[in-house]
Amino acid sequence: MPRPLVLHPDRLFPADPSVRSVARSLYEQVRSLPLVSPHGHTDPNWFANNEPYGNAVELLLAPDHYLYRMLYSQGVPLDRLGVASRAGPPATEPREAWRQFASRYALFRGTPSALWLDQVFSEVFGITVRLEADTADLYFDAIGAALATPAFRPRALFERFNIEVLATTEGPTDRLEAHAAIRRSGWPGRVISTYRPDPVIDPEHERFREVLGRFGEMTGEDVLSWRGYLQAHRRRRADFALAGATATDHGHPSAATADLSDSEAQSLFDKVVSGRFVPAEAELFRAQMLTEMARMSIEDGMVMQIHPGAFRNHNPALFASHGPDKGADVPQPTDYVRALKPLLDRFGNDARLTLIVFTLDESTYSRELAPLAGHYPALKLGPAWWFHDSPEGMRRFREQTTETAGFYNTVGFNDDTRAFLSIPARHDVCRRVDCAFLARLVSEHRMPEDEAYETAVDLAYRLAKRAYRL
Amino acid sequence: MPRPLVLHPDRLFPADPSVRSVARSLYEQVRSLPLVSPHGHTDPNWFANNEPYGNAVELLLAPDHYLYRMLYSQGVPLDRLGVASRAGPPATEPREAWRQFASRYALFRGTPSALWLDQVFSEVFGITVRLEADTADLYFDAIGAALATPAFRPRALFERFNIEVLATTEGPTDRLEAHAAIRRSGWPGRVISTYRPDPVIDPEHERFREVLGRFGEMTGEDVLSWRGYLQAHRRRRADFALAGATATDHGHPSAATADLSDSEAQSLFDKVVSGRFVPAEAELFRAQMLTEMARMSIEDGMVMQIHPGAFRNHNPALFASHGPDKGADVPQPTDYVRALKPLLDRFGNDARLTLIVFTLDESTYSRELAPLAGHYPALKLGPAWWFHDSPEGMRRFREQTTETAGFYNTVGFNDDTRAFLSIPARHDVCRRVDCAFLARLVSEHRMPEDEAYETAVDLAYRLAKRAYRL
Amino acid sequence: MPRPLVLHPDRLFPADPSVRSVARSLYEQVRSLPLVSPHGHTDPNWFANNEPYGNAVELLLAPDHYLYRMLYSQGVPLDRLGVASRAGPPATEPREAWRQFASRYALFRGTPSALWLDQVFSEVFGITVRLEADTADLYFDAIGAALATPAFRPRALFERFNIEVLATTEGPTDRLEAHAAIRRSGWPGRVISTYRPDPVIDPEHERFREVLGRFGEMTGEDVLSWRGYLQAHRRRRADFALAGATATDHGHPSAATADLSDSEAQSLFDKVVSGRFVPAEAELFRAQMLTEMARMSIEDGMVMQIHPGAFRNHNPALFASHGPDKGADVPQPTDYVRALKPLLDRFGNDARLTLIVFTLDESTYSRELAPLAGHYPALKLGPAWWFHDSPEGMRRFREQTTETAGFYNTVGFNDDTRAFLSIPARHDVCRRVDCAFLARLVSEHRMPEDEAYETAVDLAYRLAKRAYRL
Repeated sequence: MPRPLVLHPDRLFPADPSVRSVARSLYEQVRSLPLVSPHGHTDPNWFANNEPYGNAVELLLAPDHYLYRMLYSQGVPLDRLGVASRAGPPATEPREAWRQFASRYALFRGTPSALWLDQVFSEVFGITVRLEADTADLYFDAIGAALATPAFRPRALFERFNIEVLATTEGPTDRLEAHAAIRRSGWPGRVISTYRPDPVIDPEHERFREVLGRFGEMTGEDVLSWRGYLQAHRRRRADFALAGATATDHGHPSAATADLSDSEAQSLFDKVVSGRFVPAEAELFRAQMLTEMARMSIEDGMVMQIHPGAFRNHNPALFASHGPDKGADVPQPTDYVRALKPLLDRFGNDARLTLIVFTLDESTYSRELAPLAGHYPALKLGPAWWFHDSPEGMRRFREQTTETAGFYNTVGFNDDTRAFLSIPARHDVCRRVDCAFLARLVSEHRMPEDEAYETAVDLAYRLAKRAYRL
Repeated sequence: MPRPLVLHPDRLFPADPSVRSVARSLYEQVRSLPLVSPHGHTDPNWFANNEPYGNAVELLLAPDHYLYRMLYSQGVPLDRLGVASRAGPPATEPREAWRQFASRYALFRGTPSALWLDQVFSEVFGITVRLEADTADLYFDAIGAALATPAFRPRALFERFNIEVLATTEGPTDRLEAHAAIRRSGWPGRVISTYRPDPVIDPEHERFREVLGRFGEMTGEDVLSWRGYLQAHRRRRADFALAGATATDHGHPSAATADLSDSEAQSLFDKVVSGRFVPAEAELFRAQMLTEMARMSIEDGMVMQIHPGAFRNHNPALFASHGPDKGADVPQPTDYVRALKPLLDRFGNDARLTLIVFTLDESTYSRELAPLAGHYPALKLGPAWWFHDSPEGMRRFREQTTETAGFYNTVGFNDDTRAFLSIPARHDVCRRVDCAFLARLVSEHRMPEDEAYETAVDLAYRLAKRAYRL
Repeated sequence: MPRPLVLHPDRLFPADPSVRSVARSLYEQVRSLPLVSPHGHTDPNWFANNEPYGNAVELLLAPDHYLYRMLYSQGVPLDRLGVASRAGPPATEPREAWRQFASRYALFRGTPSALWLDQVFSEVFGITVRLEADTADLYFDAIGAALATPAFRPRALFERFNIEVLATTEGPTDRLEAHAAIRRSGWPGRVISTYRPDPVIDPEHERFREVLGRFGEMTGEDVLSWRGYLQAHRRRRADFALAGATATDHGHPSAATADLSDSEAQSLFDKVVSGRFVPAEAELFRAQMLTEMARMSIEDGMVMQIHPGAFRNHNPALFASHGPDKGADVPQPTDYVRALKPLLDRFGNDARLTLIVFTLDESTYSRELAPLAGHYPALKLGPAWWFHDSPEGMRRFREQTTETAGFYNTVGFNDDTRAFLSIPARHDVCRRVDCAFLARLVSEHRMPEDEAYETAVDLAYRLAKRAYRL
């Protein structure tokens, strides 16, 4: 007898009836606001080509490292989950992979993945029983059948989801053809790009030289000279702006920045392109490039995002067999106070710059990030990120940043996902958690209720538009 | 139509009716207790001269870095807020500065500044509408009118605020004339000093040599010799004790302490006064001086406070234009376990010493500070400090220290402020938050209610008196 | 008039009536489950000899560093509390020591010690008034009288406490005679050992060479050769397995691991046994030995525990007078992401290994430990430990690990205690706090109630049995 799947309308609201009542009222104001998604990893080709998605595994399981990392931690090999290795997709039948997942769905109790998925199952697919071993096939078939219908094509879902703008993320040598195709198609959905130049900025990237070569070809610049290299970035930033981008993004191991003299920068660059550099020089080059990117942001008006602090590919055996981004990235302690100083010394007082900083190290919220954001005109705090994009994580973010940085040095929500179907659920979780936080302030008479209504709309909608210049 | 300003009598209490009811009862026991303010930064001249305050900006905005740092973070130049630069006060009309502030008061939603200010506006000035653009002039005029009346002179406010003792903080070359004048005046208000010798202890202080010179003149000691330098400290500590001081205070970048041999200390001192030292030697000298100060505390009975962990003057452009203490200090990770060891090895078991330690790094509460305070007889924990002097910060302090250090290795509240008018509000916030914490313990049957009453009074009043020997 | 001691049946449950009601129902399912104690420090001789305990001080105060560290922090010398020094037990009358404790019992308000003790006083001894100066003698006499009765002999208590299995911890040269005697006696209580080889793995241990010598004698191996030394560990692990052990335990200053080549390991070992090594070599040897222990765990199936991060014997004067484990250990920041990598690179993907990691640095819960445990098949998270084995500590553990690691990469509760009488109370606190956490998830509609029931039983009973292979 399968157990019912029920989304309670008050989920994520505090249990106390009076606080819940305030949370509910606040949420009513924001629940139907359009979704602004200024940072994420969906594939623009979905919207360019508008072809149907395949099946539940291909759409929901195989691309979602939140899911398969948990299953892997409990001893399930990635191959049995349909996750591709460096050798290509495994032979596993999708239905069999889905059963593996379904029979272990209890592992996700208490995790945001369960919240997101249950909302997708219920609201997107209309499923009314819980996922478990006994309902695995029912799910697989129901999802497969739905995906074959026009209502589940990417553009139809985009519209159904009430997405006002969706930012994707592309590398420095992307031709942005998908974005051009979307615009040419006449479809009015606003899908924009984001410039993420890591592969040509990180000398330790496994394909740095190769991508740098293409970067030169695409831009016609001599990217082996410091001037030409910077100029190539300028050209590509302009290309991205034409593809709607209003932001860049930088995913470095640390938040280190540098402010070298021009000649120092040039000679460091020469070392880096020669391939004869030590790790500290690679780190210094990445650091210097953040400051260069900030300088260009002031020139071209693009918002700058820094996502630092992940130890990437922590598991070398898995990296060898399956490549990067397979759930083996782990946060590490991250310094901001000293790391950001060179960049802030140079540009921190310049209100033309918007530098949005994220963290995987929650101990920095109250100690470093809120104090920095509560002082520097250029600095804003990105929302709770990745492992912390969760109800408890979002609550800690507000509790630990608001008193020093306020609400207005934060930038609303990022869904930051490649799981397209979960976008409404992710925004919904954040809207609910923010309303719950505001409701507590109201109920404890720390904020008048009328101001909480204004703030709720700011957090759910206006701040993201304003910060990302959308 | 201005919106009403209402201070709810249950503010900061948990929303659950049964917990709130306990919190309310506990708070009734402590709300009217006299204020003991053992550490702060008000100006003793206010009480010596008892002259009227000027206007709202001069009193409330321009000296309060909590306020102008937030406004600055949103792009408002300090000059427009009436904040003095190194060149002197700006030409901005106070009324105009106040309007800048008032029109952006929403930035402070959810911050302790808003809690404190609203209580000042309502309870001290009797204002009944909220601060916003439309009420800026009403506020400016009402505050100005009030300040011109005798009831708003410093001594009258001191009495109205029910302050039992107020400690100010003076540098090592202060002549303590204001304190002498207060005592000579016959006014019975107890305003005492605190010895804060940082400028003659920190070789990297921008005026170290100059202040050291005056230090020698004042004391008649040869402060260029190690013996004379220490003797000068002893003399000044005695002067401060005569001005009522029961404590010293030390605001170093780190909590580092050292316990050098006498000859090592002497030769380090020689280097430091010669001006030919490297940063590590400056750090070692500050570290050694904490241990020297602890030794003197055992001799003269003065309580010792350490306020470490601020990266001072993080913004060099602002420092150049406006000087120190302009909202550009940022916390940094702070070690205590290794840093305090030399001092604790020497004096940690000596119950004659009271060493009160503060932190800006909340990750140390449960990891380092509570375990240290729960063991060493000499060590006590100062309350949640600066960026953490806030409802959420105080709650985290109790939640993260009590289980290991108990309540009785903490020392009650410090308002630590130069914002004189906010002192009652600051104590009130702390009393409410502590009562809320105790009410939760009572409601969860983790503490009998009668013990919570005793503890509430200890936290609000007795612990501060006992720890600071008042 | 002594005040009544009352254990409220709803203690530790949230105050909100609806959440409390769920917590109460969940707790009803788990309150009477047998106690599984897979890690602790009781003395197996108690159960081998089954002799009566002495008096309240000998049983409850003198061995409990949680208690005497707090009293010491408030200036009470250890001698007055009956705590033995290196010179032996002090002359203090036990009744007098107990009075010292009783008269300061208020120091423990809000601490887990008070929760545990009150439950022991009430449920084990049936005392109905609170401990304070006036009831000190009443307590001392009542406890003394009870201990003289057969119902308070160790085995009777073990049975009354409904302990299914109790693990003790022994050193590498323990002859395990107590465990053999228990088995020979025919008493059915399951008391098992745990292999804790720190004294022969830590070259900086004060008796490393001496213990190593005995280690060689006991095993008949040439423990001054690398092969023989490893073989001796294998032999002793097998001895411990015969004494019921299913786990090893390792209490290193850091979580550092290493994966040296065989020849590197051998030459490092030669240095270490020669006594001519620097601290970094001692650290490297400990690090290498964790990886060796993991290798042996894969061979023999023993679960491996790492308890890192304590700065042991922080107070040298107390260490000199009273020796180790006297309440002067202090946590320090602990790295896991880099420290565990060599071991994880080698064995982290091997599901045959169960490596249970603990921390004293709560900032690592969400940043490092939950992400690592949510990925590596070999890694599991031990429960909130030592200073964090408390209601707030357990709540933070769940709030900061569940969203990334789930419940099923954690291993249930460890009481980790030498305070035998407090074992039921400690498990009860954890069961209550976990039920309170689950009740919040249920009440906020983040988990269906039926799943919370299953999970509650897993947390209270099944996970510990499964993880420790009991």
